[in-house]
Amino acid sequence: MRHYVSEKRKLIEDFINGYFNPSVNPSILHDSVIYSLTAGGKRLRPILCIAAYEACGGRENIVPYATALEFIHTYSLIHDDLPAMDNDDLRRGKPTNHKVFGEAIAILAGDGLLTEAFTILSNTNYAKINPKTLLNIIAEISKAAGLRGMVAGQALDLISEGKEPDRETVEFIHLHKTAALIRASVKAGALLAETTEERVYKLEKYGESIGLAFQIVDDILDIEGTTEEMGKPKGSDIERGKMTYPSVFGIEESRRKAKELVDIAIELLRDFGEEAEPLRKIARYIIKRSS
Amino acid sequence: MRHYVSEKRKLIEDFINGYFNPSVNPSILHDSVIYSLTAGGKRLRPILCIAAYEACGGRENIVPYATALEFIHTYSLIHDDLPAMDNDDLRRGKPTNHKVFGEAIAILAGDGLLTEAFTILSNTNYAKINPKTLLNIIAEISKAAGLRGMVAGQALDLISEGKEPDRETVEFIHLHKTAALIRASVKAGALLAETTEERVYKLEKYGESIGLAFQIVDDILDIEGTTEEMGKPKGSDIERGKMTYPSVFGIEESRRKAKELVDIAIELLRDFGEEAEPLRKIARYIIKRSS
Repeated sequence: MRHYVSEKRKLIEDFINGYFNPSVNPSILHDSVIYSLTAGGKRLRPILCIAAYEACGGRENIVPYATALEFIHTYSLIHDDLPAMDNDDLRRGKPTNHKVFGEAIAILAGDGLLTEAFTILSNTNYAKINPKTLLNIIAEISKAAGLRGMVAGQALDLISEGKEPDRETVEFIHLHKTAALIRASVKAGALLAETTEERVYKLEKYGESIGLAFQIVDDILDIEGTTEEMGKPKGSDIERGKMTYPSVFGIEESRRKAKELVDIAIELLRDFGEEAEPLRKIARYIIKRSS
Repeated sequence: MRHYVSEKRKLIEDFINGYFNPSVNPSILHDSVIYSLTAGGKRLRPILCIAAYEACGGRENIVPYATALEFIHTYSLIHDDLPAMDNDDLRRGKPTNHKVFGEAIAILAGDGLLTEAFTILSNTNYAKINPKTLLNIIAEISKAAGLRGMVAGQALDLISEGKEPDRETVEFIHLHKTAALIRASVKAGALLAETTEERVYKLEKYGESIGLAFQIVDDILDIEGTTEEMGKPKGSDIERGKMTYPSVFGIEESRRKAKELVDIAIELLRDFGEEAEPLRKIARYIIKRSS
């Protein structure tokens, strides 16, 4: 598993380096984009996309398409950290993008990364994929990231700060802000492999389940984790009055829920063979972070 | 011409209204997006896309794909106006998005509009268009808007404020910040019509020429126009030390250059018939704004 992940991570990072050679002008924009793209991200979304593709027997090199998901994830982190949003100074133990490059360049770096994701996804030269399939994954990914997806989750997250926690709100936030793009990452892998509708459906549900579990674990770590584990001061959700899973359900119930979601995710992979082992291990790893 | 433009404008606005029914959640995000999408934009980019498509004999209803260009243009205006960027309080005579909805929602509304553009462009149900052609226009549009296009122009525009004006810089800014997306709008129309390579090339060049002319005229209006014409106080470029065409070449030379570009654009349409009349009239209209 460690080998699988580190091997995929290297392929993703090689693609990133190649993509920005020749570099972008002006150089401050280039540096800002590279800074956040190489700030130690786990590459969870592209790895899930590749793992889902391989679980369905895919044989092409789809690393570029998978990496587009990392571009979108990175844009969302840069914008989330802005002073007008979560106003975070640290991300993964390093100063946030706007702290280094200023707010204007940080906004533009995020805008640019989001846009480039679609340049990558619409490029038919990377692998032998049916154009209709590429359009399908662009539709899935852009819906998951857009006004009825991640952006909606982030907006509700912000306007709910300091309000009385309630179940419906926190579930909307988590499903949209985090689970939607993780779900789309897994589904994109399945669609690229042109597998059966049933398998696409199961993998999509797997993605949504681990996506939700991932965010619940993140909420728990904000309370119980160390600054080292988080890469930023713990307790920042509470300080900001964020609506989190533990704030609605308590820590124990949150931990139980995360475990249940991971069990559901693994159960959904029951009919998949050995090739789905990385997906099973990633699901289990999500829980391990919180225990 | 007035009839042509107002007819297309109505189709574009009908599509926008339909697209946001049912509305987006949370409602403040919905309102913010609708506010900027219906703030009196000229719809230049989608109209150019439709006019280029029709000039090449296209017969499908491509209004949705054309309107995606208005989503991208609107996102760019919302982000450009932010305090960290141009810090504008007025746009088209109305308070800017962040003045009404706050910075966080304005950033998210822009992010969402950019993302939704690709949801629209990847939807194969709007018209009978070859999937490969849709991928081509997604590639063209995202490149024009991305890190080597509009975003690069905006970044150089910001970091050049207050510097000694020079020709190379102002040309990079205008080509990337404004002309790239206008060029891509016209080219997308030509590609959707699946016309000859030669016609695609001529229309692309037409788009770039009027795009540049459009920005030069905008620079001139900032000096000579009235607040009513501009929808914001005149002289704001000078006040901010923006690098503009007149600041490098002077007003007279700028006016001459804009006229020359429009003449070139119309000449590029020489082999096109009656169906290209709207494109010719739009080119002439661009100059009229400044005289």
